[in-house]
Amino acid sequence: MTALVLERTHALTLRDIALPDVVGPHDVRIKMHTVGICGSDVHYYTHGAIGPFVVREPMVLGHEGSGTVVEVGPEVTTLKVGDRVCMEPGIPDPHSKATRLGLYNLDPAVRFWATPPVHGCLTPFVVHPAAFTFKLPDTVSFAAGAMVEPLAVGLHAATKARITPGDIAVVTGAGPIGMVTALAALAGGCSTVIMSDVQQPKLDLAASLGPIVPVNVATESLTAVVNEITDGWGADLVFEASGNARAAEGAIAPLCPGGCIVYVGMPGAPIQFDLVAAQAKEARIETVFRYAHAYPRALALLGSGKIDVTPLLTDTYPFERSIEAFDAATLMRPASVKAQITLPQ
Amino acid sequence: MTALVLERTHALTLRDIALPDVVGPHDVRIKMHTVGICGSDVHYYTHGAIGPFVVREPMVLGHEGSGTVVEVGPEVTTLKVGDRVCMEPGIPDPHSKATRLGLYNLDPAVRFWATPPVHGCLTPFVVHPAAFTFKLPDTVSFAAGAMVEPLAVGLHAATKARITPGDIAVVTGAGPIGMVTALAALAGGCSTVIMSDVQQPKLDLAASLGPIVPVNVATESLTAVVNEITDGWGADLVFEASGNARAAEGAIAPLCPGGCIVYVGMPGAPIQFDLVAAQAKEARIETVFRYAHAYPRALALLGSGKIDVTPLLTDTYPFERSIEAFDAATLMRPASVKAQITLPQ
Amino acid sequence: MTALVLERTHALTLRDIALPDVVGPHDVRIKMHTVGICGSDVHYYTHGAIGPFVVREPMVLGHEGSGTVVEVGPEVTTLKVGDRVCMEPGIPDPHSKATRLGLYNLDPAVRFWATPPVHGCLTPFVVHPAAFTFKLPDTVSFAAGAMVEPLAVGLHAATKARITPGDIAVVTGAGPIGMVTALAALAGGCSTVIMSDVQQPKLDLAASLGPIVPVNVATESLTAVVNEITDGWGADLVFEASGNARAAEGAIAPLCPGGCIVYVGMPGAPIQFDLVAAQAKEARIETVFRYAHAYPRALALLGSGKIDVTPLLTDTYPFERSIEAFDAATLMRPASVKAQITLPQ
Amino acid sequence: MTALVLERTHALTLRDIALPDVVGPHDVRIKMHTVGICGSDVHYYTHGAIGPFVVREPMVLGHEGSGTVVEVGPEVTTLKVGDRVCMEPGIPDPHSKATRLGLYNLDPAVRFWATPPVHGCLTPFVVHPAAFTFKLPDTVSFAAGAMVEPLAVGLHAATKARITPGDIAVVTGAGPIGMVTALAALAGGCSTVIMSDVQQPKLDLAASLGPIVPVNVATESLTAVVNEITDGWGADLVFEASGNARAAEGAIAPLCPGGCIVYVGMPGAPIQFDLVAAQAKEARIETVFRYAHAYPRALALLGSGKIDVTPLLTDTYPFERSIEAFDAATLMRPASVKAQITLPQ
Repeated sequence: MTALVLERTHALTLRDIALPDVVGPHDVRIKMHTVGICGSDVHYYTHGAIGPFVVREPMVLGHEGSGTVVEVGPEVTTLKVGDRVCMEPGIPDPHSKATRLGLYNLDPAVRFWATPPVHGCLTPFVVHPAAFTFKLPDTVSFAAGAMVEPLAVGLHAATKARITPGDIAVVTGAGPIGMVTALAALAGGCSTVIMSDVQQPKLDLAASLGPIVPVNVATESLTAVVNEITDGWGADLVFEASGNARAAEGAIAPLCPGGCIVYVGMPGAPIQFDLVAAQAKEARIETVFRYAHAYPRALALLGSGKIDVTPLLTDTYPFERSIEAFDAATLMRPASVKAQITLPQ
Repeated sequence: MTALVLERTHALTLRDIALPDVVGPHDVRIKMHTVGICGSDVHYYTHGAIGPFVVREPMVLGHEGSGTVVEVGPEVTTLKVGDRVCMEPGIPDPHSKATRLGLYNLDPAVRFWATPPVHGCLTPFVVHPAAFTFKLPDTVSFAAGAMVEPLAVGLHAATKARITPGDIAVVTGAGPIGMVTALAALAGGCSTVIMSDVQQPKLDLAASLGPIVPVNVATESLTAVVNEITDGWGADLVFEASGNARAAEGAIAPLCPGGCIVYVGMPGAPIQFDLVAAQAKEARIETVFRYAHAYPRALALLGSGKIDVTPLLTDTYPFERSIEAFDAATLMRPASVKAQITLPQ
Repeated sequence: MTALVLERTHALTLRDIALPDVVGPHDVRIKMHTVGICGSDVHYYTHGAIGPFVVREPMVLGHEGSGTVVEVGPEVTTLKVGDRVCMEPGIPDPHSKATRLGLYNLDPAVRFWATPPVHGCLTPFVVHPAAFTFKLPDTVSFAAGAMVEPLAVGLHAATKARITPGDIAVVTGAGPIGMVTALAALAGGCSTVIMSDVQQPKLDLAASLGPIVPVNVATESLTAVVNEITDGWGADLVFEASGNARAAEGAIAPLCPGGCIVYVGMPGAPIQFDLVAAQAKEARIETVFRYAHAYPRALALLGSGKIDVTPLLTDTYPFERSIEAFDAATLMRPASVKAQITLPQ
Repeated sequence: MTALVLERTHALTLRDIALPDVVGPHDVRIKMHTVGICGSDVHYYTHGAIGPFVVREPMVLGHEGSGTVVEVGPEVTTLKVGDRVCMEPGIPDPHSKATRLGLYNLDPAVRFWATPPVHGCLTPFVVHPAAFTFKLPDTVSFAAGAMVEPLAVGLHAATKARITPGDIAVVTGAGPIGMVTALAALAGGCSTVIMSDVQQPKLDLAASLGPIVPVNVATESLTAVVNEITDGWGADLVFEASGNARAAEGAIAPLCPGGCIVYVGMPGAPIQFDLVAAQAKEARIETVFRYAHAYPRALALLGSGKIDVTPLLTDTYPFERSIEAFDAATLMRPASVKAQITLPQ
């Protein structure tokens, strides 16, 4: 099967590779339609590793996928051939302690697409467990379906925040994850999101998505804007979605007493955390790792129209131009939010 | 001061009456602009009592009000003359145990407009504590401002529900409280609301407000619709907003395992509650009494455009036709949701 | 294999019966040591059914068991031959939606010992999944190990209550479930339990177990006692553990504003529930069905000495006198709390 | 009135000083009996400041007090002359936003004993609001009553942790706050506490207080002990009560997936926080600042015997030897946990 293969750092090829092909009794085979490019895909391409996950063998990239069911295992009852679907890329051990507790994203045995040594989905056909394959509502396109994976990250963050309806939230970072976090926060109960970044085109896009107040922290003080909007009380929630150490360290400043910080972005090194400043506000701090139970909720919100991710889809490439898509992604252009690759149908 | 006075059951007059007039150091005087008619106002008119609250002396009606600040006490720092405002009608004892715990709505000493023996606000000027007077955002009209009171009920219910983003909710009853509960549930994180009533005009209006699926239970089974939408799992949340005993008793049927029922409506007598059916689903049941801390949140959601109550404002009367307004309200016409009275400016 | 078989209503025999005997790869075989008699066992004996669960074929009784591992399947890593264990009697479908969410007790496909048509454990040897078999701490006897099942019910109720440390709780009903609920509430953070019943011997026993205030509601008012202890505020929590309809209906009276009722007992018919009284206090109501994730926690609390169930073990019978044990249990003597049967070793 | 006055850094005198003496309508006058010495008192003595709070004028020390009511204001209904009491040392503005929300400890206007410029209670008589003065149960001594203040810190931490009954907790630091946190965690639902320190005498004392496993981290690995006790899963909760930066940074290592860290101790400078390690476990992090609503709960737990603080009372001095008491406290002897000063009666 042809696939986009990361041979090693900085070496991508579009070539044939042997991939798992047996449709088990609880599996489905999916003809892929759209696959989004995630920052982690790009990072493997440019660095060959993320933390302890090192690419030692050629690995197919891609984990944000949608497609059409073309074959179902004999025990599958929830899906049928022809169903338009998206796929949750991480498959936990159903018998682990974490999974039994409902925390399956924290199961250390989880196998996750395009995380070494597990192949991803940038290939025309994949086999996947039906239990982690979700039908798209009729109103949700393949392109939007391939956005469910990043949206699930934002939605999981919004869920962990335990939003009280009407909360005012800050989201630091207007990249793809910041954008979906802002959309999830608004859909999840926030009245307003105050969003910070230094790239004005991203902030302009954000401001068009709903009641989102953009703050270009190259020229404005985030805390000053928050204080003005909240009469000096502070934001109920701060979602740190940039992974920038300074943003992570500064998350306490715009927070209100009793507020909550959700750390979504992952800085590359320990941060300098002012614990006493957090204690003075009795800040609650939530940290998130991927997501659990989020796909059905993301699809419900997309299907009912409460979330629209299509404005985030700034770049599309056909499968045969996948390498070009990745090379473009490494440039991180200000006007680019999410690039996707479409497979031949 | 002229006011709409309930003299006794079935006897309303528009007449002069002596009302508290001293602006204390922490008070403001408000020139009233709009006052909504609540079902409780109508019930006092037609029955002279609600439970233990009996109208024994002439009482001014009205507790859903908005207006303009015309005088501020010397200690008031949060408001100034000319501010457009709405008022929270219940004033608790700041030193009670309930208030200290943050549960000020449960303080038995609370004084609430138009709840005997406390006068309401259907009169040109009122004096009110600044701490329970809230500035309207520029984008919120006086009419919408007078809707904050019922919206606070729905928002409090949505808050107690602890919505997980993407939840599917049922709201039983499409009267004013059902409508604002549905809007609050959607703004508070639900993906879809399934709304039941027997009055088709109200359901038609509901269906125009957002992702709300109307179910006329005169001809359709609510549980059947819920099961179809949720693949047989059930609704995550059921808000009972009709006060109808049968609806209250039936709330468990459409609920999912581990789901939550919020009882907003108040039936006139004990209900027959199938506890074992609730236990089989481990239902959580929340009950609500008015609201606390909800006004700033309601105003934030109205101000940012996440909630729009204007489609609910079906009837408006000038102050001098107040009695006609109440007589019309007693008819409970299917096409009427919320009637309001506007004061002369 | 010899077993205590319920042939039909009122007909118990101790006889040979064919039982599942294959130890699968993830299973263990357990030599049974102690089996407690539960009210549900007795109810099947006297009535032949509990709600929709009807005994249509001969069925082995017993689901509160402890014993010793005598054989382990090849994939079992957590247990070894000789381990002293107790067993969780309900086995869910690992792939159900409820199980994935962590709510495995609500999985409709759960197979539960001594719930028709599933055989129980009153037999010398059983085969059970290792994942639902838990090692006893050295300090926990077989008799105490066989109490983990009812204790898990109380602990699950205490967990659902979300106790704030120092809470004052009421437990209505001093039967075995009331007793373990009181112990769990105290271990789980309550400062004091106020316990009501009409059988003085049970109340006397309860009062010896810790800071438990007994109230004989045949002669005293529960609400009056609660008000005296709480300066009129009410109890933070009310656990209804009697299954008595009047107790269930009366649970709101001793509750404080913002308090929580947990319904553990299952009345035989719908109750008359005064919803408005619950709303006036904004009562939260939790309902429980068996338990989930409770066994490791119950064992931790028994092992560390925070809970001692041995005072509840009032009656012990050898296996060959099992029928006599059941006949005695039907008498529900005031001084009897928990009867257990010991198997020959 | 004679009082222990901190004149400036390193200068204590026992001398007359003018103190507020008017008993307002809602106040009581208390004859002091016992006052504990807190680490903050000692820190003001040795450093003259804690963070932004600088001693610029002579200030009476002491905020952990108990005594007897000798006069009550005319509006006081909850206390009478002769009542044995303890006092909550922080008085918030009842009209602040934080107070209304129930978060009165976060009110920036709070006036707190022995926090500059507010005088403390190391003096024979004090005047205090009745609303923050709490009657001691008959079973609670004045010495234990003076321990309610530090116990409230531990109890608040245990409350914020949202303990699930049976949780296994780590407490790092076996000073007074670590000790009361361990007692509160056990009383609040934990089955076992694993406690770390480097001072063996303190660990030996801790091990005598209940199911507390001492770990001397000078010679043992805390994480290794935790992993052994929890079969490698990790502790459900970690309470950091030492204020030591390394302990604060290391709190993530012994934590289980989905667990919670509560930061009670306040390090003197920002810590190096490994956010990605926290994210990999989806750690929840709670921070605490003093306490709110904790006094009645602490007294309920002391009164019912669920918590016994008397083993922590290692040193007692008469009032006239107060300066000697403080000088001894600066030595931080391993066998000393809590020193108290008794006033002449």
